[in-house]
Amino acid sequence: MGMEGSKHQVLDYLRRHRGEYISGEELSRQLAITRTAVWKHIQALRREGYRIDAQTRRGYCLLGTPDCLYPEEVAVGLKTSWLGRQLYYYDEVGSTNQVAKELADNGAPEGTVVVAEAQSGGRGRRGRLWLSPPQKGIWFSLIFRPRVAPTQASQLTLLAAVAVAAAVRKYTGLPPGIKWPNDILLGGRKVCGILTEIKAEMDAVEYIVQGIGLNVNAEADDFTPDVRPYATSLFLELGRRVARLPLFQEMLYQLEKWYERWQEEGFEPVRRAWKEASVTLGREVAVNSWREVTTGVAVDIDAEGALKVRTAGGEVRRFTSGEVTLRPV
Amino acid sequence: MGMEGSKHQVLDYLRRHRGEYISGEELSRQLAITRTAVWKHIQALRREGYRIDAQTRRGYCLLGTPDCLYPEEVAVGLKTSWLGRQLYYYDEVGSTNQVAKELADNGAPEGTVVVAEAQSGGRGRRGRLWLSPPQKGIWFSLIFRPRVAPTQASQLTLLAAVAVAAAVRKYTGLPPGIKWPNDILLGGRKVCGILTEIKAEMDAVEYIVQGIGLNVNAEADDFTPDVRPYATSLFLELGRRVARLPLFQEMLYQLEKWYERWQEEGFEPVRRAWKEASVTLGREVAVNSWREVTTGVAVDIDAEGALKVRTAGGEVRRFTSGEVTLRPV
Repeated sequence: MGMEGSKHQVLDYLRRHRGEYISGEELSRQLAITRTAVWKHIQALRREGYRIDAQTRRGYCLLGTPDCLYPEEVAVGLKTSWLGRQLYYYDEVGSTNQVAKELADNGAPEGTVVVAEAQSGGRGRRGRLWLSPPQKGIWFSLIFRPRVAPTQASQLTLLAAVAVAAAVRKYTGLPPGIKWPNDILLGGRKVCGILTEIKAEMDAVEYIVQGIGLNVNAEADDFTPDVRPYATSLFLELGRRVARLPLFQEMLYQLEKWYERWQEEGFEPVRRAWKEASVTLGREVAVNSWREVTTGVAVDIDAEGALKVRTAGGEVRRFTSGEVTLRPV
Repeated sequence: MGMEGSKHQVLDYLRRHRGEYISGEELSRQLAITRTAVWKHIQALRREGYRIDAQTRRGYCLLGTPDCLYPEEVAVGLKTSWLGRQLYYYDEVGSTNQVAKELADNGAPEGTVVVAEAQSGGRGRRGRLWLSPPQKGIWFSLIFRPRVAPTQASQLTLLAAVAVAAAVRKYTGLPPGIKWPNDILLGGRKVCGILTEIKAEMDAVEYIVQGIGLNVNAEADDFTPDVRPYATSLFLELGRRVARLPLFQEMLYQLEKWYERWQEEGFEPVRRAWKEASVTLGREVAVNSWREVTTGVAVDIDAEGALKVRTAGGEVRRFTSGEVTLRPV
C-alpha cells in the first residue's frame, strides 16, 4: 500500500469514529503502519483542509472536513450508481471540458466526471470566457456515451438544465428558471452555464462532454464589471455561504436520475420538466442565430428540444441553435 | 532547395516539354543542379512509377505518369480554388479519416484533404470494415469548417453524395443513384460510401471530416464473399479500367462547387439535386434506427435532409439517422 492509500485509511478511520478521540497507537495498530506514518498522514490531511484536533494521551479527533470536492469526500454519501464513481479531481486546471474530452478520446467510460476547484481557462458557449475562481463555484464536466443520433444530443443539453435546476431548488429552496436552451437564472441573472460538446458520426454519438459551471459562493467582486449586471451566485441570492460538497452530490444524483429516465422513457418527461422550469416560454425574445436575429414570442419547445418562436407576422419559426435574449417583462 | 524540391522541378520541366527529349546537360543548367543530381532524380521518379525514356545524346523524355494520387499530379489541372490545395498523401495509412481528424484537431484549415493509395483499417458507418486495397479505389478524407449548427451538418452528408454522384456521372457516363442518406449505387450495388464525422459544440461546428471511398478498379475478387453481392466498382460496371487521377480531380471540383453553393444558397439546391439522383424516394424501404425497424414508402426528404417515410398505417415518420434497406422493385 502506498502513502496515499494509508492516508485515506487514516481519514476513513477517523471519519468512522467521528466525535471520538483515537490514539496514535490504535491507528498504528489497526492500519499496520508506524506511529511516524500516522503523524505524517495527519499533517498531510490538515494541509488539505481537514480540521483534526490532537490532544496528549487522548489522540486525534476529526472535527471538520474541508469544503473541497475531493473524490474521497464526494464518494461518501453519493447516491449515484455510476455517475461520478470515476472522478478526476484537480486543484486547478485549464478547462475541465478539455480534460474530459481528452479522457473520452482515450476511452474513459460513460459517467466519468472531471472536477476542479478552479479553472484558469474556463470557457462558455462560443468560446467566451467563463470565470472559475478557486472554490467559488462547482466547475465540472461529465462524459456521456448515449446510444442516440447526434440530432438527439440537444435533448441532453436541456436535460442537464432540468437536473441542475432540480438540485439547486432542492438544496437551496430558490426557484431557478431555465432560459433556452440551458442557462439557469435566479432573479433574472445567470447562476449556471452549461457547455455541451460532441464527437460523433452522423448517426451515432461517440461521446458527449458537458461542462457545468455553477456560481456558488462567488461575491459581486468575483465577476468582472461587464458581466456583473447579468450574473449571480447562490451566495448573492441567499445572503449566506453554501457548502459545495452536498450540492455537488445532489447535482450528480439528479443528472444520473434524469439521464436514466431519458434513456428509458425518451424526451417527453424531460420536455415537461423543462417547460415547468422555463422562464423563456410566453416571453418576448430575440434569437440570435448564425445568420440573423429573429424577434417574437417563444411559444413552445418541440419533441426534439427546438425552440418555437412566433414572429410579429404570425409565422412560427423553429430554432435548434442560437442565443436567446429575454425582453424585460 | 532540398532533394524533393529539385526532383519536382525535374518532373515539372519534363512535363512542360512532354514528348520532347531533354538532355541531362540542359536540365542541369536550367535547374542549377549537378548532372549526378539529375540522374538520381530520374531514378527516383521511375521508382514512383513515372515512365521516363533515356536515350544517349538525346536525353530524357516523359512518356507516362503513374495512376497515383501524388499531390504534384493532383495539383496539375486541378480546378478547385481551395479544396485539396493542401493535400496529404500516403502510400498506406490506417484510416484517412483518423489522420484528417488529428490534423483538424491540430488546426488544419478548411479544404485540407488526406488521400491514401491503401487503408489498412478503413471504416464505414457504425464501425464496419471498409476494404481499401492499394490503388483499387479513391480513398480520401476532407476537412470542412462550416459556420453552421451541428443539426445542419447532415446536409453536408447529402451534399457529398450529390457531388460524388455528379463526378461519377460526368466522368464515366454511368447513372449513379443515391440511397439515403449518402450511399452511391450503380445497378443497385454500392460503389461509394461516405462517412461523416463531426466535432462540435451544440450550436457551432468545430470541424466535419468526411471520408469518401469510391471503388474504382476493384475486381470481384477484391471484395469479401459476404459483401460481393452488394458491392461493385466502376471497373465492374464499365468492363474497363478507369484512370483515378482525373476522376479524383473531378470529385474535388464537384465537392468544392456544391459546398460553395450550399454556403451561398442554402440547402434547397442540394435537396433538389439529391432528389433527382435518388433511388430511395418512391420505394418501399425498411429504416433501421437505434430503437426499431420501420417499414413503409420513402416519400421525401425535408428541408433538413431528414427522410420521410409513410407507414402502412398512413403515418409519416421522419428520420434524421438510421440505415435504409431498399425492398426489391
